[in-house]
Amino acid sequence: MMLRVMTDTPAPSTAGDIEQAQRREIDTPSSHVARFGADDALALDAGSTLGPWQIAYETYGTLNAERTNAVLVCHALTGDQYVASTHPVTGKPGWWTMMVGPGKPVDTDRYFVICANVLGGCMGTTGPASLNPATGRPYALDMPVVTIRDMVRAQTRLVEHLGIETLFCVIGGSMGGMQVLQWAANFPHKVFSAIPIAAGARHSSQNIAFHEVGRQAIMADPDWRGGSYLSDGVRPSKGLAVARMAAHITYMSDESLHRKFGRNLQDREALTFGFDADFQIESYLRHQGMTFVDRFDANSYLYVTRAMDYFDLAAEYGGSLPQAFLHTDTRFCVMSFTSDWLFPTAESKAVVRALNAAAANVSFVEVASDRGHDAFLLDEPELFRTVRGFLTGAAHARGIPAPGGAA
Amino acid sequence: MMLRVMTDTPAPSTAGDIEQAQRREIDTPSSHVARFGADDALALDAGSTLGPWQIAYETYGTLNAERTNAVLVCHALTGDQYVASTHPVTGKPGWWTMMVGPGKPVDTDRYFVICANVLGGCMGTTGPASLNPATGRPYALDMPVVTIRDMVRAQTRLVEHLGIETLFCVIGGSMGGMQVLQWAANFPHKVFSAIPIAAGARHSSQNIAFHEVGRQAIMADPDWRGGSYLSDGVRPSKGLAVARMAAHITYMSDESLHRKFGRNLQDREALTFGFDADFQIESYLRHQGMTFVDRFDANSYLYVTRAMDYFDLAAEYGGSLPQAFLHTDTRFCVMSFTSDWLFPTAESKAVVRALNAAAANVSFVEVASDRGHDAFLLDEPELFRTVRGFLTGAAHARGIPAPGGAA
Repeated sequence: MMLRVMTDTPAPSTAGDIEQAQRREIDTPSSHVARFGADDALALDAGSTLGPWQIAYETYGTLNAERTNAVLVCHALTGDQYVASTHPVTGKPGWWTMMVGPGKPVDTDRYFVICANVLGGCMGTTGPASLNPATGRPYALDMPVVTIRDMVRAQTRLVEHLGIETLFCVIGGSMGGMQVLQWAANFPHKVFSAIPIAAGARHSSQNIAFHEVGRQAIMADPDWRGGSYLSDGVRPSKGLAVARMAAHITYMSDESLHRKFGRNLQDREALTFGFDADFQIESYLRHQGMTFVDRFDANSYLYVTRAMDYFDLAAEYGGSLPQAFLHTDTRFCVMSFTSDWLFPTAESKAVVRALNAAAANVSFVEVASDRGHDAFLLDEPELFRTVRGFLTGAAHARGIPAPGGAA
Repeated sequence: MMLRVMTDTPAPSTAGDIEQAQRREIDTPSSHVARFGADDALALDAGSTLGPWQIAYETYGTLNAERTNAVLVCHALTGDQYVASTHPVTGKPGWWTMMVGPGKPVDTDRYFVICANVLGGCMGTTGPASLNPATGRPYALDMPVVTIRDMVRAQTRLVEHLGIETLFCVIGGSMGGMQVLQWAANFPHKVFSAIPIAAGARHSSQNIAFHEVGRQAIMADPDWRGGSYLSDGVRPSKGLAVARMAAHITYMSDESLHRKFGRNLQDREALTFGFDADFQIESYLRHQGMTFVDRFDANSYLYVTRAMDYFDLAAEYGGSLPQAFLHTDTRFCVMSFTSDWLFPTAESKAVVRALNAAAANVSFVEVASDRGHDAFLLDEPELFRTVRGFLTGAAHARGIPAPGGAA
């Protein structure tokens, strides 16, 4: 196992360069990476083991001498470890720079922040695009299907490797929130506090349905080639773009779409009576689809959506969600957004009810926002105030000094 | 112009027979059809004219001597003229047999019911799959893009052809409801009463977005071939199936999906850790996609979704919806469903407010149902009671005798 330090290379600009950069990040990421040998294999829910394997991650801030100030940020479906640093393929800022950084709610002057690419991902942690050492070709569908629990198992290995016994906090939104709940349920003594945002304890039928549409769009693309496109030197870009477009609608609310786009036309005065993007919303969606394929692998999309679909925390505990959290000492702050229809407040409330039934320490905040599920990634002052306040209180309880000095 | 009487042929059963039957219905439908020559061309919103052209339709009941009892039923996106008779391709019963028939709310013992396939459709009315007389091949994208107003224009020609001056009622759900509103706005003296159900006066940004995903899925299928697949002897079935799957989710509610499917597994005891349809909802959606391609044409799907996207009734009247209905004598009954998130009650209320502002005669009923947009096609007693009551009152006002004898 070895560590690599991120070099601040400029982002690629031509289409060919971007594709090359994306392929490079799969096995040799620009971030840190922890590599585990075949003797250090990961046991998976599917029943098989994965090894050798690797996990790519970024860190921010400094681990204190007591090793008590580590915060693990868990990313969502198409996120990555670049939570607060430049994305090496797109050149864009980190995906949660408003939340994580010096003086931010997750204050890197106070906390040591870790963010790792999920198992099954395509930014340096082992996934279906990674080279299968047994064949010398990308795994493709030979990669076992992974679960949220498998993702968390991989993270526990990284955390151990970094010499951290107990995380001060695990925080994340959407699929990141699922990982937070999984951590808290399986490793209560390793999680001092937990902030699951815009998530739920299981994936709903409607959410599975939207994911299945995306997967079918990918698999319908003849360039998917039964998953072996990377070996064949092609990519199912059209199918992946359609999958992204369908998903993207679910991240926004009807109100926010209406406010942002309404029925406004795109760079034209009148309807064209054709199938070009007459409306701004069409143009916006097509752009979302097209840019997504530059930074994401189609098989990874299959695997990570499948992991979300399989998530059902209560099922692991005999069908009882309170059982998942029994006798926990973890402090919870559960958050949802009023206009989120992908993970509506009712899903968060079900988690809160279970935590209450397990006599856990839990606070719950529903943020009023008309921006739908994506609100957790956007400038939502109440979200930031809540996270900052909750972490400050928890840090005080844990004896982590404030940046100024006093605990 | 000539009429053909429907022959009650058994539905095809093999895949090849089904495809052949679907292709036959495009130009030579099993239903009645009214054919108009080039001298009787249809002027379209796109600025072009269409001719020769034809409109396929079914009728039920008997037109009275005064010609005052005609009800026009307008179908939704993928519906057709077989509102209360067997579908010649699928062999399935009509799509609204609970609403239309002897003794039903739209009582064919009392009313003369007409239902026509929409312009741009693929069941016998001229659409992109129809033979282009100029080339001897299917129109494909040479068919002009049509609008809801064009669909209604085509229907007015059919109604005139049937010798009917004024329709007793125009009724329809979803895209059918858009046609109802278009009829009432453009031809107030030809519409005695109007029942728009689960519709709105414009297509929202979110709805355009879902349609655009479907269109992109179709156009991403290499078998679409720029629209010329019929001439090439192929069909973009995978793309069309994905489009249908995405749309189908929007027709149901989160609650109904949860109640119907939840996280139940399909014919298996445990997760398979693969990409087969583990969950019932996946299996159900795949089935919806696959059966849809048997009865629908991909280009028609592009055209009819585009017509809905273009619909914005207020825009025709200087941006003022009340202007669309000024001085109308039509009696309106506007209906919506509580769990419909595709055409939420707010859209119906906007119509009702405009009708009120235009001093129209309007009643409004929001039906409590957890079955989402599709509720208008399902067994919803309050829907049937409302339609029956409204029509009975309107029939009394128009002097249409009850089946027993008394008006």
